[in-house]
Parts: sequence; C-alpha cells; structure tokens
Amino acid sequence: MVKDNIMKQTDGLFHDIFKEIAQEYPELEANSQIIDIGAANLADRPQNFDVVVTLNLYGDIISDIVAQIAGSVGMAGSSNIGEIVSMFEAIHGSAPDIAGKNLANPSGLLNAAVMMLVHIGQPDIAAKVNNAWLLAIEEGIHTGDIFKAGVSRIKVGTKEFADAVIGNLGHLPEKFKPVSFGKAKKIIIPEYKKIIQKKELVGVDIFLDWTGNDPNELGNKLKSLSNDLMLKIITNRGVKVYPDGQPETFLIDHWRCRFVSKNALIQQEDPSYHPISHKQIAELLLKLDSAGFDTIKTENLYYFNGKRAFSLGQGE
Amino acid sequence: MVKDNIMKQTDGLFHDIFKEIAQEYPELEANSQIIDIGAANLADRPQNFDVVVTLNLYGDIISDIVAQIAGSVGMAGSSNIGEIVSMFEAIHGSAPDIAGKNLANPSGLLNAAVMMLVHIGQPDIAAKVNNAWLLAIEEGIHTGDIFKAGVSRIKVGTKEFADAVIGNLGHLPEKFKPVSFGKAKKIIIPEYKKIIQKKELVGVDIFLDWTGNDPNELGNKLKSLSNDLMLKIITNRGVKVYPDGQPETFLIDHWRCRFVSKNALIQQEDPSYHPISHKQIAELLLKLDSAGFDTIKTENLYYFNGKRAFSLGQGE
Repeated sequence: MVKDNIMKQTDGLFHDIFKEIAQEYPELEANSQIIDIGAANLADRPQNFDVVVTLNLYGDIISDIVAQIAGSVGMAGSSNIGEIVSMFEAIHGSAPDIAGKNLANPSGLLNAAVMMLVHIGQPDIAAKVNNAWLLAIEEGIHTGDIFKAGVSRIKVGTKEFADAVIGNLGHLPEKFKPVSFGKAKKIIIPEYKKIIQKKELVGVDIFLDWTGNDPNELGNKLKSLSNDLMLKIITNRGVKVYPDGQPETFLIDHWRCRFVSKNALIQQEDPSYHPISHKQIAELLLKLDSAGFDTIKTENLYYFNGKRAFSLGQGE
Repeated sequence: MVKDNIMKQTDGLFHDIFKEIAQEYPELEANSQIIDIGAANLADRPQNFDVVVTLNLYGDIISDIVAQIAGSVGMAGSSNIGEIVSMFEAIHGSAPDIAGKNLANPSGLLNAAVMMLVHIGQPDIAAKVNNAWLLAIEEGIHTGDIFKAGVSRIKVGTKEFADAVIGNLGHLPEKFKPVSFGKAKKIIIPEYKKIIQKKELVGVDIFLDWTGNDPNELGNKLKSLSNDLMLKIITNRGVKVYPDGQPETFLIDHWRCRFVSKNALIQQEDPSYHPISHKQIAELLLKLDSAGFDTIKTENLYYFNGKRAFSLGQGE
C-alpha cells in the first residue's frame, strides 16, 4: 500500500522496488492498493488480506486498525527483523495514561515474546506460553479493553491476567485450536543489489521565507539576481504562483523557487533540462543572501537515467 | 488527529495551532488522538466521533475508512471551503478501472452536489435531491458496491440509479427521516493572526549522497573541511552514526550531516546553539563541492523564540 498517485517520487520508489522484489518470488501473488482505499478495505474486510507491505507511517496506522477491529490494540505483538539484530514489541504505544495502574492488557507483549521465542529457536516454549494465553482468553478472563458483558467471565487487571496465563502453563485451549510451532527457519535477508543509475544535477528548489504577498515582485527580483541559473517557477503550498499565477491562490510566507540551467528548454510540453553544477547553486545562495533573502532549505533536482526524478508543481 | 509524538515539528505545529484556535470556541469540546489509535478507534466505533480535524494525508485515509465501513466509498460527498472559491467532490478517487462501464455509484457526487446547493443558498432544491436519493436507497435500488442479497431489491448501473433518483424527485423517503435544510449561514473564515516569533538561524543539515560505508571516514573528512562551522553529528536513516555510532546500524548512501556554530555548547544535556549566517552555509557548500562531495539538499536549523525548532536524531 502506497500513495504514489500523489507522492510520485518517494512512494513511487517504494512501489518500484516492491515490484522489482516481487518478481523474485513468482510463487507469491503481489498486488497494490492506494493507502486510502487499502486502509478502508482492510478496516472493512480484513479477511481479504494476507501480508501487507507498506511504509512506516501507513504501517503504524493500519496495524492499529486491524488489531482494534479484531478486539483491541492491546492484543497483538510485532517483530522487526534485521540482518544482525531483531526486535519484538507490542504493536501499541506506551499508553502513559494507564501506566502503573494495573489496567494494561499484557497480551501484546506476551504475543511479541512468543514471536521472539520462535525466532530464537525455542518453539516449544513459545507454544506453551501461547496455548496458556489462548486458554485464559477462552476462559473469559479479560482485561478491561476486551471485556464484554455476556461474553467475558471476569474483568481482571494486568497482574491477574498474567497470573491466569502462568496458571495455565502446560494446558491447552479447548475451543481455540492449540498452536504448535515447528523449528523456525532462519530468516535470511538477501542482500539488495542496488541498480546504479546515471545521476545528473539539473536544477534546484530554493525555499524562501519571504513576507511579501506579490509573487510577481518576488519573481522579478529573483530573475534579476540569477544571471547564471534561470528561475523557472515559484510555487506556494505546491501551487504555481509565478509566472502567470491565479489571484485566488492563498499565499503563505513559504515560497519554493525552482531554478534550472539557462539553456533548459522549458517552453515545450515535456521540458528538457541541462546539467548545472553545485558551485552554481552555492553562488546563487550567496547572491540571495547578499540581496537579503532568507533561504530556509534547498532541494536539488536530478535526472536518473535521463528521467526526471522530481515532481512538478500544480500548474507547472 | 496528528502524529506529533514522532513528527514533533510539523504535526506538532498543526496541533499547536489546533489548540490555539480551539480556545476561541470554548463552547466546543476539543481533544486529540495520535492518528494510529485515532484511525483504529474511528474504524471500530465511528459513532464516538463528530468533526475530525487532521492533516491532508491522514484525512485522505480516514475519510475512505469511514465511508467504506458505512457502506461504500461510493456514498459520501465532500466540500472544500475556501475564502473565495469552494469545491465539492465525491470522497473517492477517479476509479479509472470502472470508468465508462455504467458501474460507478453516483451517490458520492450527488451528495457533494447537495452540499454545494446548500452552500450557494438553494436549500430547498438540495433537500429535494437528497430526499429522492434517500428514497431510492431505501427502495433497495442499489449499485454493485452496496448491493447485498436479502437487503437490496435490484442491482442497477450508474444510469439506472440516477434515473431512479430523478423519478423520485418530489417524493419523500418513508423509513429514512426526510431531510430539510434551513438557509445555510455563510461560512466566514476568520483571518488568522499569525503570532510572529523571533527566528534565529543556528545550524544546517546538509544531506550528502556518499557511497562510502565508514561514518568515521566521512566524519573526519567533513571535520577537516569545516573550520568555520562545526560538524555536530551525522545520521543515516535518522540514527546517529558519527561520532560514536553503533556498528550494527544499517547504512544507506544518504547521509545527514548537521553543522552548528563553532562555539555552540553541544556537550551539555540540553545543548545551546549560537547564530550562524547564510553566508557561512553557502561557503561550506562551496568547500564541500571543491572536496568532491555531492550535496543533495540542505535544511536550515532555527530557534523560534529561543526554542529549538528542529528534531534531534536518534541517539543525538
């Protein structure tokens, strides 16, 4: 799940690599959804999904969603597998508001510990803990977050729930299917062979903090400064405001000013850019400073393998 | 809903402004949730929510979630209210895969049009359309996305559904409560009075594309170059790798190098920074270029009202 219809470069790269890696596993069915509708489908019909590959921010959101609609964010554990170090944790946050009050559901941490035990090669102990936990759940011994009158039997605190699980060690659940783990196969993360692309610097976005409100005034000032590089456009909140902006555009004091080489062909449908140098950028920054402009950040614009690797502004 | 526990500066600013504006409306109850658990709660118990104020990316996701679990993303309209221009649209995307096939549910667009009619002062026509639509829905005339055997009566296409709504114009629903709209009050967006803060440039993050793999090599090279500004740390994927990095840290070719003034007090628990100039940054960029480094972007570091307005790296 990505949002590469909007974040074409960043989420787009993630999606490209996903497709690249998916080809190495033809036995797995791989497809993708935009995160908006993907999260909606997941909330609506989680049973339609198996493994979801996504970026960190989206993963934080959808992991909470699936745990919550399955009962509680307090239930699920998670694993972070690295080449050298692996880390296991509950999926939920630190919940400082209920810390130390004997209210938290320890199931998330317990289930993370079960994953860890399998990972480090102790599948029998993992199964023992997991089955004891399943039995406690099916006995209706529930912390407040999953307590439901008519279904649950006793509402307990963190400590009492843990005691119930400990008391169940060595017993199997009756309604739930008991789990057993085979010896875990070591997870090998194949080294990623990066495809080296030809990279050419063709422009720079310079972001200014400017308190004026006339984009044409800013544009004309910048044009007079930049004899070496050419001002192509100015955007404000992603929308083109110079040249030929719309008077309705709501303006803030954060201006993105895009400079490209003087001989770039920017009038054609699909503009063609030419290489510029880091020195030209630094010299432009010095000029901007001398003229009293407050540069707050810069982002270089590149071609990769001759293909534009930067987004266009709205209206560019 | 924000994620200001992680994105402290950007989502944090949004949250601060939310609280600032909320104080102007003491009659409204305002509280906040981290987007992860907020989205999960919304998917689980949407009835607990009223108005949700959030950032664009999160809003895209949760608006699809609530529409989908309420029946279909095809049902809901949306409005974007501006000072001069307002825009009304279905909440869903353009769904190119079903375009032109007489499959799409036109309810989202219809409901957006109802909102628009209310907005432009035609509440009676809005109610007429809305009631005709409600009647079609309760008659069980459903497009494929909301068709449910046993509940729906006829599965129809886009055109047939629209015809059913047109045929119902002037009639009221019987099971659903008929709607009526009073004359809409004009939505006045009060001008936002920005609180001007004192801004001081105290450092810069310079991002390098560097193919080496020894952070100490990079750090020592940069130290030898920067006689004017001081290299404070290098991070890779947000994690400190210089000085005193961990050998386990997975490294990519994207290095964030943080420079601050030579007299900054960085050894103390809460470091104290001193002003630097734009000229110093540009001159450092020239030096980096001469030494063969490939700078890809820069981000200036500021104090606002004497308070650090930039995040620290993991381990910084």
